Amino acid sequence: MTMPTTARATAPQILARCRDLVRPALTQAVQRLHPWPAEMAAFSLGWSEVGGTLVPGTHGSHSSHGKGVRQALTVLCAEAAGAPGENAVVGAVAVELIHTFSLLHDDIMDGDETRRQRATVWKAYGTGPAVLAGDALFALAVETLANSRTVHSGAAVRHLASTLNDLVRGQAEDLLFESRPWTGPDAVRPDEYRSMAGHKTGALLGCAAGLGAVLAGAPAPTVDALARAGRHLGVAFQAVDDLLGIWGDPQVTGKPVHNDLRRLKKTYPVLAALATDGPAARHLVALLTSGDPLDDVTARRAARLIEDAGGRSATLTEAHHHLDSARACLDSVSLAPTAVGEILTLLPFLIDRRM
Amino acid sequence: MTMPTTARATAPQILARCRDLVRPALTQAVQRLHPWPAEMAAFSLGWSEVGGTLVPGTHGSHSSHGKGVRQALTVLCAEAAGAPGENAVVGAVAVELIHTFSLLHDDIMDGDETRRQRATVWKAYGTGPAVLAGDALFALAVETLANSRTVHSGAAVRHLASTLNDLVRGQAEDLLFESRPWTGPDAVRPDEYRSMAGHKTGALLGCAAGLGAVLAGAPAPTVDALARAGRHLGVAFQAVDDLLGIWGDPQVTGKPVHNDLRRLKKTYPVLAALATDGPAARHLVALLTSGDPLDDVTARRAARLIEDAGGRSATLTEAHHHLDSARACLDSVSLAPTAVGEILTLLPFLIDRRM
Repeated sequence: MTMPTTARATAPQILARCRDLVRPALTQAVQRLHPWPAEMAAFSLGWSEVGGTLVPGTHGSHSSHGKGVRQALTVLCAEAAGAPGENAVVGAVAVELIHTFSLLHDDIMDGDETRRQRATVWKAYGTGPAVLAGDALFALAVETLANSRTVHSGAAVRHLASTLNDLVRGQAEDLLFESRPWTGPDAVRPDEYRSMAGHKTGALLGCAAGLGAVLAGAPAPTVDALARAGRHLGVAFQAVDDLLGIWGDPQVTGKPVHNDLRRLKKTYPVLAALATDGPAARHLVALLTSGDPLDDVTARRAARLIEDAGGRSATLTEAHHHLDSARACLDSVSLAPTAVGEILTLLPFLIDRRM
Repeated sequence: MTMPTTARATAPQILARCRDLVRPALTQAVQRLHPWPAEMAAFSLGWSEVGGTLVPGTHGSHSSHGKGVRQALTVLCAEAAGAPGENAVVGAVAVELIHTFSLLHDDIMDGDETRRQRATVWKAYGTGPAVLAGDALFALAVETLANSRTVHSGAAVRHLASTLNDLVRGQAEDLLFESRPWTGPDAVRPDEYRSMAGHKTGALLGCAAGLGAVLAGAPAPTVDALARAGRHLGVAFQAVDDLLGIWGDPQVTGKPVHNDLRRLKKTYPVLAALATDGPAARHLVALLTSGDPLDDVTARRAARLIEDAGGRSATLTEAHHHLDSARACLDSVSLAPTAVGEILTLLPFLIDRRM
């Protein structure tokens, strides 16, 4: 059956179209690396196993590597700014490379051993090689944009460079949160958490969106509006990640249930719960400060207390607030309606990941 | 006493002039980082101790952080191409940042615990934070060049990006050498070693020289000649480093005597000695394949055998060959004679480091 061209595309259809557009250039870029970092990059992207054996069915479907939201945002934002999506492919490639770089290095720093139900790169290949693979992806992203044959490549590199600095800043803030206390004047405040999330997650989605507009040759206010929309999406995305880190189904997240709680990670639901300073919050503090990583029973109790103190609903509210802000940014400038429609179609799909 | 302006500057004077020109911009760039990576960067640059206390006397003299050869090369190559050295300061800053990034990450990958008689960053601050600090320096270098207000910033970023990819390739090659055998068809050949050194060390000095020319607005043949001169200098530099790694004075290198031998590192003197396949080489193989890291006595014997097999003199010849090639590159295009004179003044100073 042929789909009538007037039918509105569904989120999976939109993501698949953008993936198909970007994937050949992404594959080609990774192949330009030295074979060793290239293998680690392909492993990290979910394309291959340790040793380089291809994962069946990933070519095209990309099923093992998230949904390709970032690359889709770059393509759709170029279209929203009136250019063919093809013009932004080089930006989408750079964004995917930087995303993979940051996962790879963050997993080393955070000591995370699994991601998407597989070993992380440092766990599978060793820390040194994982550092190298991350550096290789970083360098490749910069080179890809710098060498792109477009008059906008200078602006695109500047856009990427400022994102890279934000990413590093966000990761520094996140790592420093670990040694901060749960209560008292030095406790991490929800607004500090928001700033961290803005740098760590917001920056990359902001870059994805902004790069699309830059490569479309959009005027500064359009670039700015789309980049801001992307940043809001990123923070919403992070809020949902925080919910998944506590209440997510391990089958979907690929991580143990209550993973963030066991590891005493300072995420938004916990900080929002603690900020209420009610009986549930005080109970929660007692659990969190009792000692080492939480066991199953304690983690379950802590999750319950966070919910009782309103941390779960506050996080959902936070996510929806940022989605609304993203929509408002899209409304603030004149954009191509079909592409904006597709971006809007993706929004609930981003948030409504299985918990 | 005032120095007459016609007197030819000595190597230390040339290096000091270039350092004084670059240092304010380098300091300013590092200060733009998040305070935590900024502290690690300052530690790595020899400006401060763990905790951030300034090292006395480093402001200006820069004594604890090598000689500043790379930044000098960038400044002098801009002058050789007919522009004021000031034009190239942004490139010199980027090169120093990338140099520091690569030391930082390489020390993690190589497991090196000391550098310049101090703890390496990963040893002093932890592996995760050291990964982060390296990423921060990398991002800062790209941003510094991308945001420089010059018509040449696009070309400069492209130059840097290709260097970054070479650096990663060289480090991958070097790490893979470790698991290769000392003899037989899979042994590392001297020409493979040369290729690795070209990527790992040659690329950065090539970038330092080339960036100076790019930022001076030099025509392509001039950029190319200076970049090639820089690459040859880098390979010569690496050869000398290899000599220092075996026969260097620990007081000067900041590393234990025979350090590279103890760690069974595949450096040029060893590979050149093994390639002779004579009696000394066969003796050497027996020592190298006898087991774990070498003890004092065995390392001393190995050093003697390398010398007997001609590995030490072959490495010196290699260094001088690359110095000659660098001089030939400088002769191949028309350049400002004073600046070329200063570059030539630096050459023996590079090679004749105390052993």
